[in-house]
Amino acid sequence: MQNIDPAVHLARVRETHPLIHNITNHVAMNSMANVLLALGASPAMVHAREEAAEFTALASALTINIGTLSPHWVEAMEEAAEAARLAGKPWVLDPVAVGATRYRRDTGSRLLTRLPSVIRGNASEIIALAGQAGGGRGVDSTDPADAACDAAIRLANQTGGVVAVTGEVDLVSDGRRLARVHGGHALMPRVTTLGCALTGVVAAFLAGAEDPFEATVAALACYATAGELAGETAGGPGSFAVAFLDALYQLDAATLAERARLEVHHAR
Amino acid sequence: MQNIDPAVHLARVRETHPLIHNITNHVAMNSMANVLLALGASPAMVHAREEAAEFTALASALTINIGTLSPHWVEAMEEAAEAARLAGKPWVLDPVAVGATRYRRDTGSRLLTRLPSVIRGNASEIIALAGQAGGGRGVDSTDPADAACDAAIRLANQTGGVVAVTGEVDLVSDGRRLARVHGGHALMPRVTTLGCALTGVVAAFLAGAEDPFEATVAALACYATAGELAGETAGGPGSFAVAFLDALYQLDAATLAERARLEVHHAR
Amino acid sequence: MQNIDPAVHLARVRETHPLIHNITNHVAMNSMANVLLALGASPAMVHAREEAAEFTALASALTINIGTLSPHWVEAMEEAAEAARLAGKPWVLDPVAVGATRYRRDTGSRLLTRLPSVIRGNASEIIALAGQAGGGRGVDSTDPADAACDAAIRLANQTGGVVAVTGEVDLVSDGRRLARVHGGHALMPRVTTLGCALTGVVAAFLAGAEDPFEATVAALACYATAGELAGETAGGPGSFAVAFLDALYQLDAATLAERARLEVHHAR
Repeated sequence: MQNIDPAVHLARVRETHPLIHNITNHVAMNSMANVLLALGASPAMVHAREEAAEFTALASALTINIGTLSPHWVEAMEEAAEAARLAGKPWVLDPVAVGATRYRRDTGSRLLTRLPSVIRGNASEIIALAGQAGGGRGVDSTDPADAACDAAIRLANQTGGVVAVTGEVDLVSDGRRLARVHGGHALMPRVTTLGCALTGVVAAFLAGAEDPFEATVAALACYATAGELAGETAGGPGSFAVAFLDALYQLDAATLAERARLEVHHAR
Repeated sequence: MQNIDPAVHLARVRETHPLIHNITNHVAMNSMANVLLALGASPAMVHAREEAAEFTALASALTINIGTLSPHWVEAMEEAAEAARLAGKPWVLDPVAVGATRYRRDTGSRLLTRLPSVIRGNASEIIALAGQAGGGRGVDSTDPADAACDAAIRLANQTGGVVAVTGEVDLVSDGRRLARVHGGHALMPRVTTLGCALTGVVAAFLAGAEDPFEATVAALACYATAGELAGETAGGPGSFAVAFLDALYQLDAATLAERARLEVHHAR
Repeated sequence: MQNIDPAVHLARVRETHPLIHNITNHVAMNSMANVLLALGASPAMVHAREEAAEFTALASALTINIGTLSPHWVEAMEEAAEAARLAGKPWVLDPVAVGATRYRRDTGSRLLTRLPSVIRGNASEIIALAGQAGGGRGVDSTDPADAACDAAIRLANQTGGVVAVTGEVDLVSDGRRLARVHGGHALMPRVTTLGCALTGVVAAFLAGAEDPFEATVAALACYATAGELAGETAGGPGSFAVAFLDALYQLDAATLAERARLEVHHAR
């Protein structure tokens, strides 16, 4: 299958500084903004119904994360997602803990009908969103990414988009192709909202990309490589988070060529 | 009185990864999640009435922090606290700046009727919550912890729970016993929401504990020890916050045996 | 024109620990609190209509930041700003992305009628708030500070207050005087909400100051100096943010005397 060069995608983000509109959870807002800035993108958090869809029109891509919900936010999420869909702009759904409560299941289902370009979650979330049994107790996955392989392919076929299941090894599918991305570090799940921030990175890579599948794989490969680098110097989650932002900022083509490990197959 | 070994309690948290449901303030969410992850617990922030009580049922413990209030959040706080109480799950109240406004005093009083397992605040907050004069101008205490000793014992007797007053020296009482925990570092109050995050740590230690008083003392001793360690390398509040997360992550039984300083007495 | 000694103003903040009431955006809350604590001020975030104006009465200064809006917050912003104005307390407006949507333009205009003591924004925001063409697509400025010079002077004359345009070189005017503050570092715009946090620093310097123009210039000079210092050791935005908090905490008169670079002129 085709070669995906993460450095080409990263260079596009750094040249175009895409404006990424995020309706994300309260925990993730600061870290996600810092991750996007470190990468070279321009983040904006705008959640009020009074302006969300209008702001989506200004942005290059949209992300919606259901981590901390409330009714006004859910309405804005639906309107912004619809605005993105109608304008043909990429939007990424992050279905945090979607299996945990009825409110999350309902919100997840309604957002699915707006056909996200990419869904990024952990295995438990992707399995829950695909309507299978299981589903995880909270925001942390209780399943490895590969356990969500069938669910990911099914969801991708259902939405016509891409599904990324992140974990120790990441898995990406558009229903037709299936990629695995290796790397990262054991401290990554010990730093809050690194997954949520990755959703923003995927959106930044989607902006101006020709192939959402390739852009998503490239985003995950850059993230995993930065995580691997950060892990080499970190003494714990505090120093890891700092080193990770520095690594994203410093990431270059030579390091990616040496470190990034990804494989692409046919999905079936 | 009995010996409390913080390392035993810390080991339980790391083995069981308790899911801690937090309705906390906007400032604290990210730092609290990072502190809980560094410790080995699994944090989740869920505040909507539409799902708060349902989520409490999935969690091992609940925390409620009144730092940034609004009407919908207060309703969810009451419902989640009531769900915890009815299910016999531990829940911790953090009465941030409870003396500052009528809205905070009313919210604090209403939450008190749900009988928190533990109340953790600074001296000004505990004095205000106990209905005494004084009370502090904002989120920072204007009183040392010992000034709240009587108020803490009274509140503990009123709720049947534990009250922890944190400051330069921490004070814990269940009405019958009184503990003092030493340690920490002068930079701790210069890093925002370390007190709020400690409330989450107390909840994580309560999960599966037999004696809430012992678990609370153990949580405070671990926190103070990590603070002391972090202070030894920090050049200011920025590097302190980083070193503190690393210290929580690396904290082990040998260090606790050497460093943790606590005394337990009869309350009167 | 007069000499402004930033160290004198910084000493006042560190001696008086002014309580700063902030209604700020979700992204900025944690970083702003940490910046204010590192500096020696006491931050509080209180946004509910039920208590905002009451809390303003307790504080030494107020900041309002329109970064993440919603209807209840806008009402509280107006009431708190009015409370500050009536009580003669300094308040600072941070018009984040004010040109981006109708909702922001309307909110910005309504807050202007409450006569902010200081307005701090980037060039695109100040130009948009002054009602000129241009305006920036999001939270990041697309104009250098000097492009907003006329707009800043006009706004200062309209409100009777001070306007600070921050960028590579900062510009401050009260309509009569015009200051430029040099320093900072290229990594500052790569760390989220450092501008929002600076709004809090300006408020802390206004508390107890005789001349809001001088206090604002001093705040900007301290911030730029800390940024310059942090940039000397940082390897990227992660380590910059840590070093910046340490630098603010360690900042002393000797360093300011050596490093701070500011010029004051007549405005016309």
